[in-house]
Amino acid sequence: MRDFLPADKARRERVLAVIRERYRAHGFDEIETPVVEEYERLHAGIGGDNEKLAFNILKRGLDADAVRAAGDDQAALTDLGLRYDLTVPLARFYASHRAELPSVFRSIQIAPVWRAERPQKGRYRQFVQCDIDIIGDASARAEAELAVATLDTLDALGLEGGSIRINDRRALDWMLDSFGFTPEERPGVLITIDKLDKIGPDGVAAELRERALRQTQEPDFAAVDAFAAFLVRPVTMEYNPFGERQIRKALPDGAPDDIVAHLVGIGEAVAAARGSATELAGDIPLVFDPFLVRGMGYYTGTIFELAHPSVSYSLGGGGRYDGMIGRFLGQDVPAVGFSIGFERIVDLIEADEREGAASVVLVHDRDVPVSELLALKAVLLAEGSRVRLEQRTKNLKALLERAASDGYTAFATVSAGATREDLELKQLA
Amino acid sequence: MRDFLPADKARRERVLAVIRERYRAHGFDEIETPVVEEYERLHAGIGGDNEKLAFNILKRGLDADAVRAAGDDQAALTDLGLRYDLTVPLARFYASHRAELPSVFRSIQIAPVWRAERPQKGRYRQFVQCDIDIIGDASARAEAELAVATLDTLDALGLEGGSIRINDRRALDWMLDSFGFTPEERPGVLITIDKLDKIGPDGVAAELRERALRQTQEPDFAAVDAFAAFLVRPVTMEYNPFGERQIRKALPDGAPDDIVAHLVGIGEAVAAARGSATELAGDIPLVFDPFLVRGMGYYTGTIFELAHPSVSYSLGGGGRYDGMIGRFLGQDVPAVGFSIGFERIVDLIEADEREGAASVVLVHDRDVPVSELLALKAVLLAEGSRVRLEQRTKNLKALLERAASDGYTAFATVSAGATREDLELKQLA
Repeated sequence: MRDFLPADKARRERVLAVIRERYRAHGFDEIETPVVEEYERLHAGIGGDNEKLAFNILKRGLDADAVRAAGDDQAALTDLGLRYDLTVPLARFYASHRAELPSVFRSIQIAPVWRAERPQKGRYRQFVQCDIDIIGDASARAEAELAVATLDTLDALGLEGGSIRINDRRALDWMLDSFGFTPEERPGVLITIDKLDKIGPDGVAAELRERALRQTQEPDFAAVDAFAAFLVRPVTMEYNPFGERQIRKALPDGAPDDIVAHLVGIGEAVAAARGSATELAGDIPLVFDPFLVRGMGYYTGTIFELAHPSVSYSLGGGGRYDGMIGRFLGQDVPAVGFSIGFERIVDLIEADEREGAASVVLVHDRDVPVSELLALKAVLLAEGSRVRLEQRTKNLKALLERAASDGYTAFATVSAGATREDLELKQLA
Repeated sequence: MRDFLPADKARRERVLAVIRERYRAHGFDEIETPVVEEYERLHAGIGGDNEKLAFNILKRGLDADAVRAAGDDQAALTDLGLRYDLTVPLARFYASHRAELPSVFRSIQIAPVWRAERPQKGRYRQFVQCDIDIIGDASARAEAELAVATLDTLDALGLEGGSIRINDRRALDWMLDSFGFTPEERPGVLITIDKLDKIGPDGVAAELRERALRQTQEPDFAAVDAFAAFLVRPVTMEYNPFGERQIRKALPDGAPDDIVAHLVGIGEAVAAARGSATELAGDIPLVFDPFLVRGMGYYTGTIFELAHPSVSYSLGGGGRYDGMIGRFLGQDVPAVGFSIGFERIVDLIEADEREGAASVVLVHDRDVPVSELLALKAVLLAEGSRVRLEQRTKNLKALLERAASDGYTAFATVSAGATREDLELKQLA
């Protein structure tokens, strides 16, 4: 977990302000839930592998006997935990407050989450997630609004040129069925396909064979072979322009019409919003990727991943999870979300510490009365400036360099008796 | 702990944005520390009673034997905890990063803290604190900058008319000495004086007598009697205008010059910043209160409390804690802080959900293609509006009322084939 010094914190807050403003403009509403959720809810099987990474809070008022009795059952020592994502809290929030929310609820959540990851570069135990979700809309409108809001926000951050890889879990399921994988094999096969970017088609085929061998001593490799051949068939991964023809070309023959139509609907809407005339002509920032998997088990339909030409890793992702709200509400409600990786995005944003408004350092002699200093500061504040008072030190150059690196743009020296008219503002280098 | 629905969350974020902007203008820099701190640090005796209210995090990877062995020693089950204030983390932060910070460091911290309080009205287990602190300045300039920044921020929030009660722990100590209380009696006597607002001078005198009786069977009541007489002497509590004459009048004769001069210096500087010509003439928002105590044991000098005419309780407070940084750094550094009670202040701010920019609800028929909807939304977004899409429901009135209560100011109905020119924007009631 990290401390943030002023320059980093200022950059983080600037990025958050842009994200918040853009998401709000797109009709999303921000909510907040407590950092701490009930243990039972955090460990209900929805959070996937993240459940194991939860920080749990020691129950208060335990006596020595209760502690001794707990022994191996550490769940007996805890009743609360720190959230490891914002999706489980959102589902709980929606179930609690549904009556107070619009029938289609577009939520923003911008907040830290905690995971007890092993420390490694680029992984933090506390990090900020920025999620938008649409609850109550099963149509392609929901996916399209999420995708457009996300791309617009990336643009507003100066990260133009982002694009979204898109797939549908139902298309994946259908494809695996069509090659002859059984529903029981499916989860394992998906875990392997998810490694395609890393290990390539040959690596995927080899791992699928190993997997089959682990399950039975005389496996039938027919499904693996068919899938391996499909993986390496001579079709480029550039499916742009996005449209029905391209989607069908990327999938085995006979893909179900409803799944294709949903994807095409998203593409048309994103194209319309991004200003392309037709869904086939424009340079639409959507790429259909039939092998995109996304790790979480709760996805039920569309899945996304956000890409940007400046980096090889994804900047965010999401998908449809129509079953989850029902776990809390006892009634199924369609839902789809998109999470951008705030920590990754903030690293891509140029450090630009200069303020919009003037920001002035008043360097004063030791003998200037405090009341004169604060009167001068008040005058500059009233003029709209940001003001820092600094007592002159022997090394004035170092003092001014520090101020410049903290974002100050001008300075003036102040002697006893000086008024606003006496201040000569000079630019900081 | 609370969920925040969109209207509340929007109000909270608006208030935070004002606080952040004003504090930054006054030359403070925001930092952030992790929510979780080491257990040892949270329980080093600095946090006072709050240490007992800390939520502690269960150690990971404990085996059954370690749990059984812990028994009564629950500290063995935990190595981390949620912070209960922002002062302990600030002291730790400053000790870690001193070389990277200006010699006088003005920090802003705006962040949640957690305390396992018994649930009661107006007390929350998770709540936001807004602290400003100045580290490295022992002069009255520091107190004056904190007071002026705080009052300016209150003004900017529309809460004009705030004032600050001020005292100095050294003045309290000197006063108790002068009445004949021993240094050993002091902490207990201060706890009783802290109740003056609640139980009145007679209540204080009675409790001090009880306290003396508990300590020895034949107590000497001389100190209590002298103090009780002083408490009820015919001097009003209105010490405004603030200045040396008033401070000396409020204290027993012979108050130490250095303490009085420090207080007068703060008053002059606040008066200068707030535009009063002299420290004796203006309506200075400072009130000297010789009986102001503040609970925390770490205060070493000036103490403050923020008052506002609209409420009887304090809206914040703070003080000088010159000894604390040294606990972490091994070298004493002067420090003074002011914390405003964000949760209390947010409750005083009028709900004003109307946006600055236009915000439009597009109520569309079911048959409008998604791509048309998103194209219209994109056009309105480009015009600077906030846009929500809503499919028309039977009860249009309810839909529009909900949108108005969510801050939307206009609506238009959308049929299939509509273009921007066809949209007729109508004001929402």
